[in-house]
Amino acid sequence: MEIFHATEIQGNTVFLDAEESAHCVRVLRHRTGDEITVVDGNGTMARCRLTDDSPKGATAEILEKVEGWGGHPYSLTMAVCPTKNNDRYEWFVEKATEVGVDVIVPVIGERSERKVFKTDRSRKIALSAMKQSLKAKLPRIEEPVSVKEFISFEAKPASPSLSLPPSGPVRVNGRDEGLAGLARPEDKLRLICYCFEGEKERISIEDALKGLPVGAEVTIMIGPEGDFSPEEARLAVENGFIPVHLGPSRLRTETAAVTAATAVYLHFV
Amino acid sequence: MEIFHATEIQGNTVFLDAEESAHCVRVLRHRTGDEITVVDGNGTMARCRLTDDSPKGATAEILEKVEGWGGHPYSLTMAVCPTKNNDRYEWFVEKATEVGVDVIVPVIGERSERKVFKTDRSRKIALSAMKQSLKAKLPRIEEPVSVKEFISFEAKPASPSLSLPPSGPVRVNGRDEGLAGLARPEDKLRLICYCFEGEKERISIEDALKGLPVGAEVTIMIGPEGDFSPEEARLAVENGFIPVHLGPSRLRTETAAVTAATAVYLHFV
Repeated sequence: MEIFHATEIQGNTVFLDAEESAHCVRVLRHRTGDEITVVDGNGTMARCRLTDDSPKGATAEILEKVEGWGGHPYSLTMAVCPTKNNDRYEWFVEKATEVGVDVIVPVIGERSERKVFKTDRSRKIALSAMKQSLKAKLPRIEEPVSVKEFISFEAKPASPSLSLPPSGPVRVNGRDEGLAGLARPEDKLRLICYCFEGEKERISIEDALKGLPVGAEVTIMIGPEGDFSPEEARLAVENGFIPVHLGPSRLRTETAAVTAATAVYLHFV
Repeated sequence: MEIFHATEIQGNTVFLDAEESAHCVRVLRHRTGDEITVVDGNGTMARCRLTDDSPKGATAEILEKVEGWGGHPYSLTMAVCPTKNNDRYEWFVEKATEVGVDVIVPVIGERSERKVFKTDRSRKIALSAMKQSLKAKLPRIEEPVSVKEFISFEAKPASPSLSLPPSGPVRVNGRDEGLAGLARPEDKLRLICYCFEGEKERISIEDALKGLPVGAEVTIMIGPEGDFSPEEARLAVENGFIPVHLGPSRLRTETAAVTAATAVYLHFV
């Protein structure tokens, strides 16, 4: 099944850009009258009939629309420090898109070895991963910001229960609710994966996600090869981020990022 | 932290092969008397002192041994069909090793486009991923076998409770135990990720893993791009494999494999 991405939709008419038109008409040899599947990158899939098979600018009319096509029941922002090797970051972008992510923010930490990041390639990879995995929503790849900028952007008054997590899940009415159980559904759950060498206060990501309701917003920060600086970690916790660990395995930055995104995805499976 | 892999250990003496010796002495410039960390690939880490810094065959004496170093509390066999693009399979091998896997079996399905598989490169990748992620146990990469050969190799009399899974987790004493709760710890939990187009009998991998005890043995089969053939799937179910799904996202073969391995890992986190 082949998906086309349309950036312009007017009323009932879909306009494919030059690249998508060429792929549709030249490569796949679709002709006027053919049925094609188009996604708008915002969550809507449209079954369309090709009305103009121009390879420079094809158009199609919408026959049927499906909202939230290939979507996931949560909203996930992954703020991940660029890896030394760019391919590894792009691999994370592809896998997170396949599994289900909404926003990817390249964040530059004080200990990041890579201080610059080109978003163009990652956006291309997210686009093809969206089409390949039959999703209608394109993850937003933000321009890089510093870890501290991102934290203050995400900042909210830290509630005691969130800024000082217990060593295990919280029990409410005798049931494991986890920290998420304390957060109101409209609250964003903010997690920072940090080694906190020697510190005892981290909980597992599984405990942090316990009781997370459908529709929850989650933000997860993943540090660079050299981890976050203690000051970045302190700032994150002061601003309501819960320090979590991903278990005993020592994971590369991009593996940690995909593992964390997968933990959120599997919570709703 | 740099790890060396020793294939030969006699009593208290560790022998590094030519490649590891050259890396230790030529690249990292270790000299007799230096302390190095050696793993045996079977789960044991040894803190050693270099006694001979020959770049062709270095030796070291063991100062301290740690069993089960960097291990995980389960035994996981991943039987995954080779991907059309070999890099994607090697990526799965690297990530599964980082997260925690014991045996990887390249299985060739009736619908596999790639019928041959070279194990050498995957073994090299598993070795470097083991060292990079500070583990002492090297995943075993088997020679490729057909899906049907693998199923008969794994075969056991299917117990009704395992071959005919309910549509949800099993409740024992009012607690969600999942299917694994029914299996005795010494039983192997066998899962097959299969699209079963239109079939209703699959449960989610999360439900299948519920109640899985520490030390459990798990085998997971992942099909090729074209999925397992109906006959392969039927044979698997007849032989005690539980058909599971990985949720709503449409995942590539290698992504499905890493997601399934991550689900097992996170179950114990």
